This record gives sequence, C-alpha cells and structure tokens, in this order.
Amino acid sequence: MQLIESLKWRYATKKMDATKKVSEQDIDCIKEAVQLSASSYGLQPYTVLDIRDSELRKEIRPMCWNQSQITDASHIFIFCNYNKVDEQDVDSLIRLISETNEVPIEKISGYGDFVKGKLKEKSEIEMFHWSAKQAYIALGNALTACAELNIDSTPMEGFEPEEVNKLLGLNDKGLNACVILAIGYRSLDDQTQYSKKVRKPINTMFEER
Amino acid sequence: MQLIESLKWRYATKKMDATKKVSEQDIDCIKEAVQLSASSYGLQPYTVLDIRDSELRKEIRPMCWNQSQITDASHIFIFCNYNKVDEQDVDSLIRLISETNEVPIEKISGYGDFVKGKLKEKSEIEMFHWSAKQAYIALGNALTACAELNIDSTPMEGFEPEEVNKLLGLNDKGLNACVILAIGYRSLDDQTQYSKKVRKPINTMFEER
Repeated sequence: MQLIESLKWRYATKKMDATKKVSEQDIDCIKEAVQLSASSYGLQPYTVLDIRDSELRKEIRPMCWNQSQITDASHIFIFCNYNKVDEQDVDSLIRLISETNEVPIEKISGYGDFVKGKLKEKSEIEMFHWSAKQAYIALGNALTACAELNIDSTPMEGFEPEEVNKLLGLNDKGLNACVILAIGYRSLDDQTQYSKKVRKPINTMFEER
Repeated sequence: MQLIESLKWRYATKKMDATKKVSEQDIDCIKEAVQLSASSYGLQPYTVLDIRDSELRKEIRPMCWNQSQITDASHIFIFCNYNKVDEQDVDSLIRLISETNEVPIEKISGYGDFVKGKLKEKSEIEMFHWSAKQAYIALGNALTACAELNIDSTPMEGFEPEEVNKLLGLNDKGLNACVILAIGYRSLDDQTQYSKKVRKPINTMFEER
C-alpha cells in the first residue's frame, strides 16, 4: 500500500541540504494535496504562506528556536488558521458549492444557515483551535505528498506564533501561524535519518469496545 | 500520484450500506496508517476506540445528532485525545525510543527533560487542544488509507463529546472524544457521491511571500 510505504519512509528531517531545490511541479502536487484535504463542513478555514524570500526566512528563523530548516529547506509553508470563522466564510462556501455543482443558492442556503448556527455554539477559543485542527489534516496530507515524491519534510511546532504573526502581519488578517512545514532534501549529515521510526504498538493505541 | 487520486476519490459518505463489512485485513491497514502518523515530539497523545458492540453503537447514535453512519457503518473509530500529557507520557516515549533504537536512556533523557519543559509552557486548554490536533493528523491519514483501499469513510465532528465521554467512561481515563471516523461502504442511495468535490482554488489558499 503506497500510503503505508510513504509513512514508513518519511521522518522529521533535522538538517536539510541547502543546495537542493524542490521542483515547482512537485510543489504544485503538494499544494494540491493540501487543497484536496477534508475539513469540517468543507470550510477549509486556513491559508498557507509559501515563504520564498530568503531575507524573510532569516528574520523568521530566530522565532523558530533558530532551527536550521527555516533557512536551509527548499520551501517553507506556514499554515495559518483563521482566528474566527464568520458568516461571510459560510456564505463563500455556499457560493462555491453552488458554482461547482451548478445548484441554485436557494437550494443550499438551508445548509448554510445550519452551519452558521453550529459555528455560533463554539466559544472564541474553541473556534480558534477548531480551525487549526482542520489545518492539521492538511499538514498530514502535505507530509504524505512529500514522502510519495521522495521529498523530505519537517513538521514544526517549535516557534513563537505571536512573533511570527506580528512579523507577517497576520493578526490584521485574522490569521494565526499554527504549524510550519519545511520541505526539501535531507543533508547526508542528518543523523536522524539512520534512526528507526519510534511508534507505540497498535494494540496500545487501539481499544475494542 | 496515488495520494492525489485517493483524495479525489474520497468523499464524506452520508449513507453507508449497513450490509457490507470491511475486512479485518483492511482495518489493520487503516490502523497502521494511524499508528505511523506524525505527532508532536512523537508523543502520539491519543487513543482510538474501535466500537464493535452494535448495542453500544445504538446508544451512541443519538449523541451524534442521530447520524445513520454510527449504526450503519462497518466500523466506528472514536479518536480520543489525552486531556493532559504528563511527565509519565514523556518517560514512556523515552523508554520507547531507547528500546526501539537500542540507545541507553541516559543518552536521551536530556531530550525528555526538554520535552517536559516545553509541555509545562502550555496552559491546560492549550494542551487539551494540542493533543487533539495530533489526532487530526492521524484522522487525515486514516481517511487516505480508506480511500486507497476503495473503502468509504466519514469524518464526524457532529456529536456531543461530553455525552460520549460520559457513556464510554473516558473522563476517568483522562481521554476526550475529539473526532469520529465511520468506515464502510457507501449506499447506492447516498446522493452525495454524485456531487463534485468542492474546494477553494489553490491560488486563494496559498500566498507567496
């Protein structure tokens, strides 16, 4: 099974080879995996920043515990969840469903009202974390896409979101940097690649009822 | 690319065929995809309940907005995040790393101390949602595993966690039902399968900086 092979192959790369670049074609595939990811109600409540500017990368690195992947990786994706999902976001979804499936908005506006009602039940903090959870589904798919393309990657939570948000002007856009993905090719010096994958046994992770 | 094909093929199945069962071999593959999923520090801070008892399923269904998949699906996985990740969880991880890679615990205890220190920086509510986010990475991989096996699935957030937690005695175990995955085969009556997949255009989801 391709997925299992990909999951076994990948590892969180600690040191990237700064001289190797991922092709734009492969980056487009990884972006498509993010785009196709499932999300609650189909709202996709996140934006992904693709940080190309090397000077900006240098500025971001100290905010990320000075981890070298930030400047050495070929590409850096910063997943930014919406701080708040509002009625306009639901209206946009309804328009998109209407256009994609060629159904009149009136026929699906009831669904929009249902989603709006459900969103109102969430507290501010619940909504903040809920939108980030959707981004984590996409993060997982991006990791798998990289592996299937034999591209290395590192999911990174080790950074100061407040500082990154400020530097990138995310607060004003209602966005929050929730997780970073470094994409590139491993350095031969990265000792982590030689370690065995560490995972709990399945029988301790699952419980039949 | 297999992943893209799988992501395009899958959809959130609204009506499962209650007469069709997923093979145990396939269920084992889906479990392996969960097990191999990335998680922060490798902590895998969640447990998955595999609800086999049909009477229990009937009890759970009204807590899930009475959605039919709960009783009609072949299998129901309830992803339960740890309410709190404590020092014992980190010690377990360190032991597992030590055993898997045959390194003395003393050599990696510094890493354990680092992780413990980082966990202490999280508030109670941050930790609660953070562990759930890790489960969402695994949820995404389970969805992909199903699709690659031509098995249908439905990720479900539409349920009352407090009620499910109480029924299943999860509070006492420090667990919280964060998301449910129904696994099975679509009913021919499920109209959703004939709809086009609705996704935002890539250029509106990604922003180059």
